[in-house]
Amino acid sequence: MPSLVLLRHGQSVWNKEDLFTGWTEVDLSEQGVDEARLAGKRLAAAKFGFDICFTSVLKRAIKTLHLALEEMDLLWLPEQKSWRLNERHYGALQGLNKAETARKHSAEQVRLWRRSWDVPPPPLDDDDPRHPKHDPRYAGLTAAELPRTESLKDTVARVLPFWHETIAPALRQDQRVLIAAHGNSLRGLVKYLSDIPDQDIPGFELPTGQPLVYELDAALKPTKRYFLDQ
Amino acid sequence: MPSLVLLRHGQSVWNKEDLFTGWTEVDLSEQGVDEARLAGKRLAAAKFGFDICFTSVLKRAIKTLHLALEEMDLLWLPEQKSWRLNERHYGALQGLNKAETARKHSAEQVRLWRRSWDVPPPPLDDDDPRHPKHDPRYAGLTAAELPRTESLKDTVARVLPFWHETIAPALRQDQRVLIAAHGNSLRGLVKYLSDIPDQDIPGFELPTGQPLVYELDAALKPTKRYFLDQ
Repeated sequence: MPSLVLLRHGQSVWNKEDLFTGWTEVDLSEQGVDEARLAGKRLAAAKFGFDICFTSVLKRAIKTLHLALEEMDLLWLPEQKSWRLNERHYGALQGLNKAETARKHSAEQVRLWRRSWDVPPPPLDDDDPRHPKHDPRYAGLTAAELPRTESLKDTVARVLPFWHETIAPALRQDQRVLIAAHGNSLRGLVKYLSDIPDQDIPGFELPTGQPLVYELDAALKPTKRYFLDQ
Repeated sequence: MPSLVLLRHGQSVWNKEDLFTGWTEVDLSEQGVDEARLAGKRLAAAKFGFDICFTSVLKRAIKTLHLALEEMDLLWLPEQKSWRLNERHYGALQGLNKAETARKHSAEQVRLWRRSWDVPPPPLDDDDPRHPKHDPRYAGLTAAELPRTESLKDTVARVLPFWHETIAPALRQDQRVLIAAHGNSLRGLVKYLSDIPDQDIPGFELPTGQPLVYELDAALKPTKRYFLDQ
């Protein structure tokens, strides 16, 4: 039966400094490196095998994948990166401190931006240097695909085509799949696979270092879901 | 014009201990890690950009690629791994000490195995646990493709199909290519590109940490070749 493991990246240096990150290129913290290795050790100890890996184009997820694969002695596996697995784009909040933003806009407004289903943060201006059109890794995207901000709903909408076009076909060919990505892009996959209502999915937490395992039937419906927490 | 950079992996722990390595999975030494990072720093300082990367399925090359990409802030690039870029298979010598082997078989015999064009080391027995048929990363290969030993000539013969089928088409699409691989698989590419005679290619040395840069014309003929040594 097809098997799928979702792995959230370890702590980044901006998580630690309480800044909104989104699509910003931020490295893993030392703790994040340890969390990624721990995830790999847990998967190796539980005798998980994989045939193919997917990750985003952001280095905190890519490095998490590489560190976990190294612990499993599976660095040789094919890996495919896609912007569709990126973290939610946090718009004009990217780079701002979360506590300061709450003081400026009210805690309730920030809670809405962070934890609602369909309220996006303020968008980036077209000429903002943080706009993804300035980054060569997004050169292949259409103007309509390039986000200036995203609600969780928007993130889920751009993650799912990658599931349907690339990940699901691999699973149907009996490939064992590992995905290293981000809190919100993985929420999108969990929402779809486990059919979680819009209002509940923002509250679904994926702890770092704890791979989320899905066992699936031939139609890719989940028969079991659990965190590998030891 | 198409550009191509060849990068030999940094020192491995078996290079350091003077053991024949071949297809054995051996990690980078601390010095090897530094060499890989140095190569990335040199490429970044010289403003090299890339669109796609290729490497072998052996972790000393894969980690070299990842470390160099990290220094260039290009971990997001697509990467493709192939067994065809692996080091030369060293047959039954894999895991043996080079000096001890010279005492046992004569220095001249070992020199022939190491530095001739077409003399392969003794082959692995079919039931040897070191035979690549036991390793899941080679599960997709035919019995004829799975080596039990290789001369440099054999290595070049299995590298070149990957050049023609995968690397050359990428270059023809104007993609800037980085290949992180091994002394002998890279010799195969250098022999082909620079048209080096059989008897001379075993003596062509690629120092670790020094990327070898090829500038190519539209027909993929080299117009310039140099080591990036600072």
